[in-house]
Amino acid sequence: MGLVVLKFGGTSVSSVSKIQKTAEQAVLEHQKGNQVIVVVSAMGKSTDKLVQMAEEIATTPSKREMDMLLATGEQITISLLAMALQERGQEAISYTGWQAGIETEAVHGNARILDMEHDKIMTSLGDGKIVIVAGFQGITRDGEITTLGRGGSDTTAVALAAEFSAEKCVICTDVDGVYTTDPRFIKRAQKLTQLTYDEMLELANLGAGVLHPRSVEYAKNFKIPLEVRLSHGLENGTMIEEEMYVENAKVVRGIAFEDQLTRVTIHWSEKENMRVSKVFSELAKNNIDVDIIIQGITGLGHGNLSFTIQSAALLNTLAVLENKKTDIQYEKLESEQNLAKVSIVGSGMVSNPGVAARMFEALTENDVPIKMISTSEIKVSTVVPERKMVEAAQVLHDTFELEN
Amino acid sequence: MGLVVLKFGGTSVSSVSKIQKTAEQAVLEHQKGNQVIVVVSAMGKSTDKLVQMAEEIATTPSKREMDMLLATGEQITISLLAMALQERGQEAISYTGWQAGIETEAVHGNARILDMEHDKIMTSLGDGKIVIVAGFQGITRDGEITTLGRGGSDTTAVALAAEFSAEKCVICTDVDGVYTTDPRFIKRAQKLTQLTYDEMLELANLGAGVLHPRSVEYAKNFKIPLEVRLSHGLENGTMIEEEMYVENAKVVRGIAFEDQLTRVTIHWSEKENMRVSKVFSELAKNNIDVDIIIQGITGLGHGNLSFTIQSAALLNTLAVLENKKTDIQYEKLESEQNLAKVSIVGSGMVSNPGVAARMFEALTENDVPIKMISTSEIKVSTVVPERKMVEAAQVLHDTFELEN
Repeated sequence: MGLVVLKFGGTSVSSVSKIQKTAEQAVLEHQKGNQVIVVVSAMGKSTDKLVQMAEEIATTPSKREMDMLLATGEQITISLLAMALQERGQEAISYTGWQAGIETEAVHGNARILDMEHDKIMTSLGDGKIVIVAGFQGITRDGEITTLGRGGSDTTAVALAAEFSAEKCVICTDVDGVYTTDPRFIKRAQKLTQLTYDEMLELANLGAGVLHPRSVEYAKNFKIPLEVRLSHGLENGTMIEEEMYVENAKVVRGIAFEDQLTRVTIHWSEKENMRVSKVFSELAKNNIDVDIIIQGITGLGHGNLSFTIQSAALLNTLAVLENKKTDIQYEKLESEQNLAKVSIVGSGMVSNPGVAARMFEALTENDVPIKMISTSEIKVSTVVPERKMVEAAQVLHDTFELEN
Repeated sequence: MGLVVLKFGGTSVSSVSKIQKTAEQAVLEHQKGNQVIVVVSAMGKSTDKLVQMAEEIATTPSKREMDMLLATGEQITISLLAMALQERGQEAISYTGWQAGIETEAVHGNARILDMEHDKIMTSLGDGKIVIVAGFQGITRDGEITTLGRGGSDTTAVALAAEFSAEKCVICTDVDGVYTTDPRFIKRAQKLTQLTYDEMLELANLGAGVLHPRSVEYAKNFKIPLEVRLSHGLENGTMIEEEMYVENAKVVRGIAFEDQLTRVTIHWSEKENMRVSKVFSELAKNNIDVDIIIQGITGLGHGNLSFTIQSAALLNTLAVLENKKTDIQYEKLESEQNLAKVSIVGSGMVSNPGVAARMFEALTENDVPIKMISTSEIKVSTVVPERKMVEAAQVLHDTFELEN
């Protein structure tokens, strides 16, 4: 008999009838002979409603009181889900974050889990109960309620899976798995049976959006197999594990893409004056996220630095840089909008040189201009014109034979 | 500098704008130089909505999970109220029942408070903060969330007032005080300036409805002065204290009345067979509340027992009694519907014989037939025809000169 952690997000518990369906899924898992821990988020849009009330009351509500407010969302779901299970004759018990002893840092709004209590949940599981734990929330050593930030319920689920040495942690969501690329744009996108943690991390960071990177990192560190599957179905989803067990694993496993990017380039007349770290510290201070960074030095002693940002951050970025012109000592600023990032991801790339070259060739042959390039061990990203993004993804999907 | 506990019920915090008004009241109290603890209930009808969801999910939801569910209601209010205070520049901090260490019995749905933690709230008060505590909820020694049942937030407020030796506990509600009688029926009803705990207890039990008897008992035991006043006004309300300090305190302080009562009478042919305790144990087993009880023995060895019940419980009562006829060994049952209870209350009655006589005289003179009588040290209740109830209350209000 194994232990399985099931996590259901807000859309999977957004109404009484969906909570009942979620209960059925949990019972099915229990009837397989597994011990079951269920982690749930707040019901559908209930968090938005709470945030709206807070914003009507205060311009910048205190983070402590926001955590106090938002933590009620999951507490409602856990109790209703416990009732739904009990109504089906299944013994069940719900625990809030603090009752489950999910200890976090003393940071409000985005805390990290530090520790977890073991005995209470273990006893309940031993009694044959399905244990339901509120996702997204924890408690500090001083008894303050905290929340874990975006993707927090996934993190709770993975942390519980690690603490109780679960066989796997199943992320039940509104998609049936992880795809080779975004099926809304590329019709021939295929559901993947397996992925490694690193591949998933790259895809998560590249905007695949199914899982929050923090929870994937956590699963990787504790070697917890993750499965992404549809909330209220019976089909297998995508397994995310340490190693690939399929023999014909492809070198490139997925294509990620993201639009609405802008390149900003800073030119210096003398490369000795390049205050690169100053650039990024000022941007960070203003909460501007920078993605791909390329530093160039031209023959004549000039220097330049290019980086990409979300297009929405352009005005703010230019204002920050112009404001600090004398500190940064640059000559001029330049920017290019309407760009996109298209990336290939696959852990087999490390041992397969030439993958990047095949990518660039394919894009060039199809008249997709490459504006910037960035690589990691298992990923190659290119910046291309926004209007060419889907075409580029399609070309790469074909080139690396992901449709079959 | 004193300490004041303010309690606001659900209707006083039913919307964002009412929460803001409640914040203003708390600030006003703080600006008088007092330390302030605020106890709040769940927002307006939010508890009803939670109960409705639970009832859609389960026919008889587990009491543990109901407490888990309902405790979210006050947690929402405390955080929003803290934000509203902070937005006004007033330092504030909110605590759930468990954070405030409100320890209760291990009973779900109707727990009693056993103990309370002192230091956390004391420190926050010392820091100049208004402390906001979730009413109606507590925690067992094992870390289970409990609720205190009807009137629970009043009880939380009084318990906090006792723990922190408050100057007074102010129950802020939608009426501006306790009246000599129900002003919806008797136009000349007057707001009382003061009442004793015992008087308030009798009035609360007699259906005056402003305060829950349990909280009044609690206040009496710990000698906490209670004030009942309008939530969002400045006027003084009614003080409820151990002793009356006004010189011209009247013997009768208030008139309570309640309609929709029915008298049931059981006749035995031989008084030796009267199984009186069996009657009441069977009724209790079936959750039938019995109010006034009169046992009579007639000259010929017959016996009878009369008691009043809510008219809505009549069919159930008759069914229970008929079912147990052989056990109870009675001869026949009889009942009279459309009755009401009219009572006079006043702690001065103990030392003023003749008050009851004046009451009966006044009723008789005004053609109000008296069906049953019940007395305590500070109360006389009469059962009269329902159609005469308001008239009887009016007569007594005049007789005991309560309008001036």
